[in-house]
Amino acid sequence: MFAPNYRLYRCPKCGGLLEVEVSNLHWTPKGRGVWRYASMLPLKSGVSLGEGQTPLVKSVLGEGLYVKFDGANPTGSFKDRGMALGVTVARESGANKVVVASTGNTAASAAAYAARAGLRCYVVLPRGNVARGKLVQAALHGAELVMVNGYFDKALEYVVNYGTRYAYPLNSFNPWRLEGQKTLAFEVYEELGCPDYVVVPVGNAGNISAIWKGFKELASLGLCNKLPKMIGVQAEGAAPLADAWERGLEEPLFVDEPRTVASAIKIGRPINWPKALRAVRESGGFFVKVSDGEIIKAQRLLATKDGLGAEPAGAASVAAALKLGLRGTVVAVVTGHALKDPDAVEVSAREVRNADELAELLER
Amino acid sequence: MFAPNYRLYRCPKCGGLLEVEVSNLHWTPKGRGVWRYASMLPLKSGVSLGEGQTPLVKSVLGEGLYVKFDGANPTGSFKDRGMALGVTVARESGANKVVVASTGNTAASAAAYAARAGLRCYVVLPRGNVARGKLVQAALHGAELVMVNGYFDKALEYVVNYGTRYAYPLNSFNPWRLEGQKTLAFEVYEELGCPDYVVVPVGNAGNISAIWKGFKELASLGLCNKLPKMIGVQAEGAAPLADAWERGLEEPLFVDEPRTVASAIKIGRPINWPKALRAVRESGGFFVKVSDGEIIKAQRLLATKDGLGAEPAGAASVAAALKLGLRGTVVAVVTGHALKDPDAVEVSAREVRNADELAELLER
Repeated sequence: MFAPNYRLYRCPKCGGLLEVEVSNLHWTPKGRGVWRYASMLPLKSGVSLGEGQTPLVKSVLGEGLYVKFDGANPTGSFKDRGMALGVTVARESGANKVVVASTGNTAASAAAYAARAGLRCYVVLPRGNVARGKLVQAALHGAELVMVNGYFDKALEYVVNYGTRYAYPLNSFNPWRLEGQKTLAFEVYEELGCPDYVVVPVGNAGNISAIWKGFKELASLGLCNKLPKMIGVQAEGAAPLADAWERGLEEPLFVDEPRTVASAIKIGRPINWPKALRAVRESGGFFVKVSDGEIIKAQRLLATKDGLGAEPAGAASVAAALKLGLRGTVVAVVTGHALKDPDAVEVSAREVRNADELAELLER
Repeated sequence: MFAPNYRLYRCPKCGGLLEVEVSNLHWTPKGRGVWRYASMLPLKSGVSLGEGQTPLVKSVLGEGLYVKFDGANPTGSFKDRGMALGVTVARESGANKVVVASTGNTAASAAAYAARAGLRCYVVLPRGNVARGKLVQAALHGAELVMVNGYFDKALEYVVNYGTRYAYPLNSFNPWRLEGQKTLAFEVYEELGCPDYVVVPVGNAGNISAIWKGFKELASLGLCNKLPKMIGVQAEGAAPLADAWERGLEEPLFVDEPRTVASAIKIGRPINWPKALRAVRESGGFFVKVSDGEIIKAQRLLATKDGLGAEPAGAASVAAALKLGLRGTVVAVVTGHALKDPDAVEVSAREVRNADELAELLER
């Protein structure tokens, strides 16, 4: 246990994960963005782009199934909730630069919020095999894109070991970010009460523990009379936690070369695994794997039946909810927008030569 | 004046535009999505994906300047507000198919809402020069993409003259759609009251009249004590209304080959021009042109200073607000998300060979 300190984001003794404990929690939601829940947060105001208050849509795909569509955040993913807090803490700590290792949603969100806060943002990327589309947002928001040789792990290592000397690190080991992400639980509670299950895609494994922390805090105030079971979803080719869970192991089975179409959860060594494991255990939930085929099928069903466009990683939660056939009230968290990963969608078109042919087509 | 009829979307006598008049308006906002304002709408419930309630962000770019960021809608543009109404009306009318001519945001939104409502959706596109990225959403949501020879005008002609026999048309001549779009005014009113100016990008010219209608309805209930001046913004190469306004003409100077980087307002013959002209006149506002250079500069400023990612057409309003230097409270409507048009963004990256070089870069 340490006194609050904005420069403290990993244990100074062992390098391990830290968790923020908010004293004097109380429930007085007011206004917009994550700061609506200021009374539940470790800071009482800060940077905002109007993140959160995302749609909670009743799905037609299963009885009791709701989709929390975090693709409707300002930069198109759930990361915005955490960055509102993370960037505020960075600024309060006196930093004028932030740094993240990322190839996707984290980079876009960090770049946008850093811009808003007047901080410089450095995004460290593994050279090669980086989709241009995923960098467009970070570039637009004026982040400095830095390529390094090696895989994502190497980029993260650079950030952890070297970047933190000169810039504030906003990767998901930063516990302040998770304080923003827990607001998803508060929004679900306000609209729906406490569901029976919350199904969350698991990549670097921060979000599921953040959401669980949110529900626990609601319960500690007597607001939830039951707590949801947390279901962590991984893709078959990137399932260090689900694989370990199946075998009853206490530690993840790390994957050196993760493979899945769901790029945002294509992570073999999730840094927040101890927190995720605790969330799943404490809640009475479990980890589950879904195949790429199941993910793409769920993405398609979500788009063609519910009208919601998810990136593949975001649809993984829906894939799991459908596969498991859970009973009761189930909230599947869709973490990112389809526009984040347009290459994952097949497009085909018919041709008509004249108006008669169009009429014929429509008449069918 | 006609009795309400969901199949009535153009004047059966002259083919002209119609406007919906809602009887018994009253102000009792409640809940989420456009249906929050059911008491102000011609229908009291219907299809929703949680559209609206988009961020209203105080800009750092000008005193009194606010950005209404409609890019945070479910499909990433303001079209979702209108489609919630339009698709509901289509369903109530007994249609099982909808049709739109479009190459962009309209197609994506119609496809998503039609999917949600269980209707088939046909998107009619001019062959050639159609950006694949812009079709991905429509395809994902299961719309049937139909290519025709000719320009956008030809596609629209097909829809108007042939499509409407067999399917419900959701292009912006449909006045029911505009009823959904007017909810932007209600949201601005709830957060900010009535501003001095509302600045709106003008393509097919429906949105500016819809927003004006919303403010007028608020005033009719005694809720706004002053009405905003409506500023219509067009791109220099696609400025039929702004060009006519400059010359004091009563009708637009149609453009046969519109040219601008802002594809969503690249329209030479805006079908709703009479409504837009009336909105601007009645409000005491005006039309203004901005160059592609000004648009791209505004997009960049918005991204790097305010942290908001706009597509070029969406940034046109901010470009105009900055150029005009308006005094008082100014709301610039950003109509679509940067992710809609990623090709408009330049990406460049540095390379570092080792951790020392990264440290050096960050130390600067």
